[in-house]
Amino acid sequence: MRILLALGGNAMTSPDGKARPEDQIAAAKQAMEAVADLVAEGIEVVITHGNGPQVGNILVKNEIAAHVVPPVPLDWCGAQTQGTLGDILMNALDAALAARGIDRPSAALVTRTRVDPDDPAFATPSKPVGRYLPEDEARKMMDHGETWEDRGERGWRRVVASPEPLEVLDARAVATLVDAGYVVIANGGGGIPTVREADGTLAGIEAVIDKDLGAALLAHSVEVDMLVIATDVAHAVLGFGTPQAQDIGEVTLDQMREYAEAGHFAGGSMGPKVEALLRYVEQSGRRGVITDLSSILLAAAGQAGTIVVPNRKES
Amino acid sequence: MRILLALGGNAMTSPDGKARPEDQIAAAKQAMEAVADLVAEGIEVVITHGNGPQVGNILVKNEIAAHVVPPVPLDWCGAQTQGTLGDILMNALDAALAARGIDRPSAALVTRTRVDPDDPAFATPSKPVGRYLPEDEARKMMDHGETWEDRGERGWRRVVASPEPLEVLDARAVATLVDAGYVVIANGGGGIPTVREADGTLAGIEAVIDKDLGAALLAHSVEVDMLVIATDVAHAVLGFGTPQAQDIGEVTLDQMREYAEAGHFAGGSMGPKVEALLRYVEQSGRRGVITDLSSILLAAAGQAGTIVVPNRKES
Repeated sequence: MRILLALGGNAMTSPDGKARPEDQIAAAKQAMEAVADLVAEGIEVVITHGNGPQVGNILVKNEIAAHVVPPVPLDWCGAQTQGTLGDILMNALDAALAARGIDRPSAALVTRTRVDPDDPAFATPSKPVGRYLPEDEARKMMDHGETWEDRGERGWRRVVASPEPLEVLDARAVATLVDAGYVVIANGGGGIPTVREADGTLAGIEAVIDKDLGAALLAHSVEVDMLVIATDVAHAVLGFGTPQAQDIGEVTLDQMREYAEAGHFAGGSMGPKVEALLRYVEQSGRRGVITDLSSILLAAAGQAGTIVVPNRKES
Repeated sequence: MRILLALGGNAMTSPDGKARPEDQIAAAKQAMEAVADLVAEGIEVVITHGNGPQVGNILVKNEIAAHVVPPVPLDWCGAQTQGTLGDILMNALDAALAARGIDRPSAALVTRTRVDPDDPAFATPSKPVGRYLPEDEARKMMDHGETWEDRGERGWRRVVASPEPLEVLDARAVATLVDAGYVVIANGGGGIPTVREADGTLAGIEAVIDKDLGAALLAHSVEVDMLVIATDVAHAVLGFGTPQAQDIGEVTLDQMREYAEAGHFAGGSMGPKVEALLRYVEQSGRRGVITDLSSILLAAAGQAGTIVVPNRKES
């Protein structure tokens, strides 16, 4: 059995959202204990991760130091987090595996994901990144070609394009390493946004890719048996926040899509996760799961989490 | 034939030393043309790279923004450059290979290198990194536990430990990918300095590893046929800067060591490159080359560069 596990960027911070290096290392250790439990069951695991808080920190440094050091583009910020998170996830995973007496190597790949330079998202940037600034400082950044939006009381915030991921350019390397027995960390932050230019050359482009959509694409490319999107709740919920709130267990693709269209997952961060899961199950004909880290092992056995299964074939 | 090519961090900047993103991308393109020429000859290539100017830039951002965003440790700066340089080297290489009609995938690995926490280098940090600061600002950083040195007219500069690389922890993944046909980019900046703690866990440590010593270690681990250290001159030189200056061509290990001990490579950056090459040739019994990018193809054929060969066996 092969699983792709998508960890949120917030799963790599302290419980109160701090993303100091020590917070990230502590959170990585906790997450990799859960992964080591999966590996101990003989499951092949591919890990991907978000990077929102980490990219936010790098962007702030870029802005504050821009008068001394040339800022790096947004796609480079993502590449930087693939380096740091890949490093600490490998360290944590190697330790968790060794503690279980398991000799399985880990590997972390710098991973690019192709997007369309004509994606409509580039015309209407909508994904907020980085810190809030007062209007006058935001306007200075806008003079440098960035898009910032008035977000009300907290101030202005930069918005960037979040284009559709079309192809994980380095999926082949992921598959090669998984086939050879590695636990692979790849496609962090949804992959480094990359475009293929008219002459065939590849170039990074300033954007962020939804990490769950990137995970769904990678899961399909490397033919895993199950995509698991880890979040901070054990289940997606119907009627979230109402007295009738009800956990969703196993559910068919069509039924889950109906729930989504009825607006059950509109609020907060559950919507995009459900959308990524629906896409994956539809494309691959395999199972997709939303659950929390402590339930992953049971979820892999079909005994926990919200499990979206393909529609039953008519007999 | 399998080659490990070590590119200087300065080979990833503009000719006048600028390390803006566009400078790094342009330099990467130039270097990957040379690599694609090697691949076109059927040579398997592993690439490693320095990261001095890039880490310098990140350190400056860390310092300037420290009042707003927690600085990341030095080992993370190295990890960040493995992400960005891995990304742009893959883009450049893929384009150069495609232009030659060659279907060879590239891959970039986040790579850790183990060092000894008791390495004497930690007691006497000596490797300068980052920018020069006036004494009062340097003293503020020293209050935070850093070591800074008075470097005379230009000001004070941070010095860090440069411990011996003992083991490329991710060499196995490099070998797996090379064996599977990938052109692999790995161990950037000599690898992310990592220590194995008493309980067996792995953790990053603030240090920089000499990228050529890291390259020699990786070359030995993945059993290449030749280590090529690329620099900006076609040959190492005897009596450099004197009227008797003379290029070194093919030379035995013992002869080259004699030249080194006589002080021929003391000045500038040639000394550490020669030292790394001597170690590699001694350990592996294979050839080591110092040359420039434009001579690599000829050097691989034994027709250019300074080529250090093992001592002749007594017959």
